[in-house]
Amino acid sequence: MKTKRCHESFVTMTELVLPNDTNGLNNLMGGRLMHFMDIAAAIAAQKHSNRIVVTASVDNISFSEPIRIGNTVTITAFVTRAFSSSMEVYLEVTAEDIPIHKKVKSNRAFFTFVAVDQSGSPIEVPKVKAETELEKELYEGALRRRQLRLVLGNRMRPSEAKELRSIFEREE
Amino acid sequence: MKTKRCHESFVTMTELVLPNDTNGLNNLMGGRLMHFMDIAAAIAAQKHSNRIVVTASVDNISFSEPIRIGNTVTITAFVTRAFSSSMEVYLEVTAEDIPIHKKVKSNRAFFTFVAVDQSGSPIEVPKVKAETELEKELYEGALRRRQLRLVLGNRMRPSEAKELRSIFEREE
Amino acid sequence: MKTKRCHESFVTMTELVLPNDTNGLNNLMGGRLMHFMDIAAAIAAQKHSNRIVVTASVDNISFSEPIRIGNTVTITAFVTRAFSSSMEVYLEVTAEDIPIHKKVKSNRAFFTFVAVDQSGSPIEVPKVKAETELEKELYEGALRRRQLRLVLGNRMRPSEAKELRSIFEREE
Amino acid sequence: MKTKRCHESFVTMTELVLPNDTNGLNNLMGGRLMHFMDIAAAIAAQKHSNRIVVTASVDNISFSEPIRIGNTVTITAFVTRAFSSSMEVYLEVTAEDIPIHKKVKSNRAFFTFVAVDQSGSPIEVPKVKAETELEKELYEGALRRRQLRLVLGNRMRPSEAKELRSIFEREE
Amino acid sequence: MKTKRCHESFVTMTELVLPNDTNGLNNLMGGRLMHFMDIAAAIAAQKHSNRIVVTASVDNISFSEPIRIGNTVTITAFVTRAFSSSMEVYLEVTAEDIPIHKKVKSNRAFFTFVAVDQSGSPIEVPKVKAETELEKELYEGALRRRQLRLVLGNRMRPSEAKELRSIFEREE
Amino acid sequence: MKTKRCHESFVTMTELVLPNDTNGLNNLMGGRLMHFMDIAAAIAAQKHSNRIVVTASVDNISFSEPIRIGNTVTITAFVTRAFSSSMEVYLEVTAEDIPIHKKVKSNRAFFTFVAVDQSGSPIEVPKVKAETELEKELYEGALRRRQLRLVLGNRMRPSEAKELRSIFEREE
Repeated sequence: MKTKRCHESFVTMTELVLPNDTNGLNNLMGGRLMHFMDIAAAIAAQKHSNRIVVTASVDNISFSEPIRIGNTVTITAFVTRAFSSSMEVYLEVTAEDIPIHKKVKSNRAFFTFVAVDQSGSPIEVPKVKAETELEKELYEGALRRRQLRLVLGNRMRPSEAKELRSIFEREE
Repeated sequence: MKTKRCHESFVTMTELVLPNDTNGLNNLMGGRLMHFMDIAAAIAAQKHSNRIVVTASVDNISFSEPIRIGNTVTITAFVTRAFSSSMEVYLEVTAEDIPIHKKVKSNRAFFTFVAVDQSGSPIEVPKVKAETELEKELYEGALRRRQLRLVLGNRMRPSEAKELRSIFEREE
Repeated sequence: MKTKRCHESFVTMTELVLPNDTNGLNNLMGGRLMHFMDIAAAIAAQKHSNRIVVTASVDNISFSEPIRIGNTVTITAFVTRAFSSSMEVYLEVTAEDIPIHKKVKSNRAFFTFVAVDQSGSPIEVPKVKAETELEKELYEGALRRRQLRLVLGNRMRPSEAKELRSIFEREE
Repeated sequence: MKTKRCHESFVTMTELVLPNDTNGLNNLMGGRLMHFMDIAAAIAAQKHSNRIVVTASVDNISFSEPIRIGNTVTITAFVTRAFSSSMEVYLEVTAEDIPIHKKVKSNRAFFTFVAVDQSGSPIEVPKVKAETELEKELYEGALRRRQLRLVLGNRMRPSEAKELRSIFEREE
Repeated sequence: MKTKRCHESFVTMTELVLPNDTNGLNNLMGGRLMHFMDIAAAIAAQKHSNRIVVTASVDNISFSEPIRIGNTVTITAFVTRAFSSSMEVYLEVTAEDIPIHKKVKSNRAFFTFVAVDQSGSPIEVPKVKAETELEKELYEGALRRRQLRLVLGNRMRPSEAKELRSIFEREE
Repeated sequence: MKTKRCHESFVTMTELVLPNDTNGLNNLMGGRLMHFMDIAAAIAAQKHSNRIVVTASVDNISFSEPIRIGNTVTITAFVTRAFSSSMEVYLEVTAEDIPIHKKVKSNRAFFTFVAVDQSGSPIEVPKVKAETELEKELYEGALRRRQLRLVLGNRMRPSEAKELRSIFEREE
């Protein structure tokens, strides 16, 4: 199974914030934004694996400045690393109020997808080849983030999460 | 400002999985489920604070078994702990295929909301009084989860996250 | 076929009134509320029968005070009585403007559902066991309401609707 | 205030049953159909009154044959009679599966609307002039249906509902 | 295969402009209006052919005055002429702000549909019989519009488009 | 007012075809695709003008191969030329069934937008600087397409449409 480069799974999604995406206060709801992000990330995972994919997990997401009705939301996504049948997808969200020339980096996030065959069983996906500095940095960090996911999901004991623990030890 | 009990913010939301909630493979999309969860959590935070609330962050969420079209999704949510103007909301998601008597605990998740006044500035909210065993356990863990959020959001250095670090030390 | 208690079919649905649910004047449209009610009632009927259910009829519904955008609508529903393959579902709708502590009992309504098998043919459902005072009162009234439905649907002659007629005679 | 003829408020609405209008079994949900009906009826009431209108009540509706995905639903509506600020609207729903030449009269229904001014207070509307046989029959029956609504809404005692009671006496 | 009259495919669709149909400035988005038009035109083509139909092309559409939230949009459509398996549908769009008695002819447009069988292959449809003056005029012009479509789609050379060229020569 | 380059208005929109975007036969409806295209084109026009924009017209669009549910639709758009307050936007639509490695160029289209100020009056926009071969070719053709729009909209007599007429003369 051949290796694929990050940019082969790169996807750009642009959405206009419409009334029903907002909370009645004219701000984009966090849940609606995550819905957009999930679709963008799923397409990236699909492009990497050429398979049907299902959302496996979403890492901690923070929402900073409000995004307003009529704003343009741009989401970019690509696969940073693959682990057997699962893929970590990195997303960047930018919000823009074009008429007033205001552009805000809204979010960064990591979603994980699993590739499945027709019967829904996990199936192996290509490895990822990181090329740019950002891609390499994300590739490196993927292992640590994966351990955090496993620990938080009670599928790994904290004591086994070597890469993750190093963060806490490193800084002392 | 008076303290409020967890069950005062308790909310139950029930949704039927309709075609457009699914990914074309008849499974509920992860992003659509997070959209439902965000609304349920926002209502809980609103009930606790009697304020307008905005989503501040979402903790790591794992998706296990697929939820099918026509299934009933039940989301319960309540505020576990408040920190000045922010509130942590705990959610449990259950999916049910009623005609075949199949009921699955789908997800647990933590969303954080900030209460704001009319001009959008953060405003203090009541403290939480935990009563049941589950409520007390969640209240206790809230500090640790908050530190993880701050570390992941680069707003706290890992070395300062005392409660969080204890997990790693404890288990060795 | 075993009897089921009212609370076994009890369902709570909570919805946030979003822009597209409103009529452009920021009030929830009656038709959109009935759409929510139909889903809540269908889930209750499904829980009672563990069958696929279809809406058979809706009794007279009155709409009193307007429900505003951003309000929270809570719908509770349970099966009051079963007649062979049909079930009467009782609904209560409450609207709440949480930030201003305003809560209004908006509606009461009765929907009727029929349980069907895979080929769409009506199929028998469990009997209902009413326990609380409200449940018993609703159980009693179900026969009279059923006669009214049959008379209004031209499937029963007014002269045969004994329970229904008693209302008019009683009060003179 | 001048009188208006029924056909001045006549409206035809045609909808294609799309996936999200269905219950996952490919049948139009009753609640979605009532949503369509409410919009058609509101437009008719608006045409009669040239006012903002709000749904006041819906009479008993029966659903007979299922309407399938891809079918065309045609709803016609017009105002049958006005009572001060309220208007009764009569609706007929037809469902059609055009490729197989199958056309079914699905429903008849009565919705009541109230005309309001900018502050939401009820405001008087023109009287209705019935011309055709159907219009005259509906105009006549409107009083009886109104009494039934008032009785069911506990705003009139059955003993006062003269026109309504006559139905029961007539047939003996 | 029998000929069908224009009015046999005539369809009227009425829509209320809801928040999500608008661009955040409370004006109906052009793309949403085209979505409504496509559905109305598809139903007309289906009524003419009693077949499944697919959109083949849309002629130049101009949008003049803005249509506001809460306005009523009425679309009428009928088949003007058939060419083997394709049908030209003529649409008229009217927007109305009923409370202020303002009615605007918004658009005229031509959509072309192809009738297909179950496997998606084009299949012949009945010829059209134009009766009224407008129908006859549209029937005549259909050939010229078809040539324009073919030329614009690079499927006909301008020099072969006799009817189309006559427009330019005629006026000199 | 400074000139802007085509790529400054370039926008990429990616959409997943969901159930409600389809016609019940699992194919993307033409009208829904035009809705997506209108939003993508509006964002491009907004990026060029930094103004609120409204759809003025859509040129002839042809739909070739069906786009299926679950497919990914990618729309790219940029402004080709500006005429005082109006902008022509060029769109390319690609549909992709990623799991089966099938990618189809679905459509090319031209939308025209007008920039408006807060009161809705047309306002001048920057000129366009075409750089690549495609951009230059589109810039050149814009005049001819504009004449066709004016002729089809009865706002220019065919005899005055010099650039447009040259097409017909050229080929003889």
